[in-house]
Amino acid sequence: MSDFRFDLKATDGAARTGVISTPRGEIRTPAFMPVGTAGTVKAMHPQHVRETGADIVLGNTYHLMLRPTAERVRQLGGLHNFMNWDRPILTDSGGFQVMSLSKLRKLTENGVTFQSHIDGSRHELTPERSIEIQCLLGSDIQMQFDECPPFPISEEGSRESMELSLRWAVRSKQAFEEKASPGNALFGIVQGSVFEDQRRRSLDELLKIGFHGYSVGGLAVGEGQEEMFRVLDFTCPHMDTAKPRYLMGVGKPSDLVGAVARGIDMFDCVAPTRSGRHGQAWTKNGPINIKNARFIDDETPLDADSSCPASSQYSKAYLNHLFKAGEYLGPMLLTWHNLHYYQQLMADMRSAIAEGRFDRFVKEFEEAQGADG
Amino acid sequence: MSDFRFDLKATDGAARTGVISTPRGEIRTPAFMPVGTAGTVKAMHPQHVRETGADIVLGNTYHLMLRPTAERVRQLGGLHNFMNWDRPILTDSGGFQVMSLSKLRKLTENGVTFQSHIDGSRHELTPERSIEIQCLLGSDIQMQFDECPPFPISEEGSRESMELSLRWAVRSKQAFEEKASPGNALFGIVQGSVFEDQRRRSLDELLKIGFHGYSVGGLAVGEGQEEMFRVLDFTCPHMDTAKPRYLMGVGKPSDLVGAVARGIDMFDCVAPTRSGRHGQAWTKNGPINIKNARFIDDETPLDADSSCPASSQYSKAYLNHLFKAGEYLGPMLLTWHNLHYYQQLMADMRSAIAEGRFDRFVKEFEEAQGADG
Ligand SMILES: [Zn+2]
Ligand SMILES: [Zn+2]
Repeated sequence: MSDFRFDLKATDGAARTGVISTPRGEIRTPAFMPVGTAGTVKAMHPQHVRETGADIVLGNTYHLMLRPTAERVRQLGGLHNFMNWDRPILTDSGGFQVMSLSKLRKLTENGVTFQSHIDGSRHELTPERSIEIQCLLGSDIQMQFDECPPFPISEEGSRESMELSLRWAVRSKQAFEEKASPGNALFGIVQGSVFEDQRRRSLDELLKIGFHGYSVGGLAVGEGQEEMFRVLDFTCPHMDTAKPRYLMGVGKPSDLVGAVARGIDMFDCVAPTRSGRHGQAWTKNGPINIKNARFIDDETPLDADSSCPASSQYSKAYLNHLFKAGEYLGPMLLTWHNLHYYQQLMADMRSAIAEGRFDRFVKEFEEAQGADG
Repeated sequence: MSDFRFDLKATDGAARTGVISTPRGEIRTPAFMPVGTAGTVKAMHPQHVRETGADIVLGNTYHLMLRPTAERVRQLGGLHNFMNWDRPILTDSGGFQVMSLSKLRKLTENGVTFQSHIDGSRHELTPERSIEIQCLLGSDIQMQFDECPPFPISEEGSRESMELSLRWAVRSKQAFEEKASPGNALFGIVQGSVFEDQRRRSLDELLKIGFHGYSVGGLAVGEGQEEMFRVLDFTCPHMDTAKPRYLMGVGKPSDLVGAVARGIDMFDCVAPTRSGRHGQAWTKNGPINIKNARFIDDETPLDADSSCPASSQYSKAYLNHLFKAGEYLGPMLLTWHNLHYYQQLMADMRSAIAEGRFDRFVKEFEEAQGADG
């Protein structure tokens, strides 16, 4: 575990900026990780993902174990080689997507058995198998196997689930220590829904087990931004300041800004890629839907200040045309624009924190964005 | 009409290599023109189309007049600016696609009225309107408006159609002379189906009218390669040696090689882009379908000699995975590979002709390709 390291460079209030070092390269934090579900960030060449400023991408254990399978990825030289991305990759544990995508799930103390949503084949995920898969993929930053409870959930239901995830955390760490390669990292996942005492207990126990970083799970599942920030408000102050903090599956630009203000270092979300494929583009003045008829004759760029190709080489009218005609280039360009927007936002936050003006940054961001930002 | 010029550099048997000069750049012949139907070469950034070696792309009058409309393209700065392609663009006249795509067509001496396949709206194309649209788009090389008869067709039916196209050729030229910009070019289209006397009459009359180049139309419509070559055998020897010759809508790699051997200089075809989106890749040993299960564990590249990203950065197993998972990157990479393959084939033919070894090139090409090449 020699080569994984987190260096905090500066703090500004609760906001932090730093660098995670891995054998495959550095990750500047706060970091946004584009999602490469099935071994590709949808509609993007990997070189262009890098060009937007991404230091790391995310891969999904659930998708990759089903197709092409972890063993096949391993045989083909690992996920980095397979998808032509030589920088760090973080993998989830499969737990969340088993619960949201698979069929006929059965949860026991040992793990989850389920049917593939692709072909109905039967599979099992346990803490040991999840870590084995993440090792076969060659993941640089792995997640413990956890249970992701639904939202809303009763206090008692949440407690049982959180306690199960803690037992799985112990088993995940043991499997990781047996199988992982030098320089790999394992993150524990704080659960406990919206209940302060449960989040505290989850975090305290995880800190005792000891991980390379700590994720906040079970948020962005429908509780709303205000409630999510409330959970971060009572969780983040107790997290290990020396370790990276990762808020899983989040979020919109305003979610990222608010979470960074509360001390989060890492994010992943399908929002920029998925929205891009559906014609939504983020701009510094909030999101727009390029399919809207008002853009049909609009000669202006998506964002006059953006250096991404969608903004610098095309008009809104052309992008509107591409989406109306169902052309591939529409999703390709808007995905690029949105990833570029997200990475620029992260870079701007890193600079603001380093220069001690994060409060002003947040204020200007909120003024520029509409209510939907 | 000052700046359009064709310089023949070398001949080898009937095969020719040369350069077409236009105000927007040079076109090396024999040339393959990727098809950018609706103002985009599907699944490609235009810079990458250029990187494959394309000197010119094709735009479709029929598609663009319906959406976003020629007037709108004009208002947005012309097709080059709209689609971010500053090199030459050739447009067809709309005649072929009106016959193959639109509904409720009515053909008269004046032109064709039809219903849009997109929204059912009514439109009219005449020689004058076709040229007007091509001028509004800012096309560098325009086509006369012609009628594309079905195949097979009776000798009498073909003759009537060919004579109508000749009358439309006169009107097209007149409209072009009134509306086109300096340096624009207009090509006449030789019709007459598979009938030698009709092809001769069509060509002779077009030569009398006088065009910047001559297209061979009405082929690749189901007559088969042998019959297509037979038509070229009795048509090409009578074409103006000082003008470019364009075989419309052709074709497979072996079609291109055989047609170049008969004296053709320019081609366009949706084959490389459409096949690429459906998982077919051309290689020097013939076409393969990357979706085939035998590639699931194949670590080798699509084409070890190709410098395109699909070949140089990924395995067949990865490409197979992308297509099975329905990922955008699959069509993106295979389209790139196929366009690269086509442009490399054209470059190889140009070199072989220039060096007087085209016969040997054809023999080696045929030996390497399978029967389906
Ligand atoms: Zn942009
Ligand atoms: Zn290739």
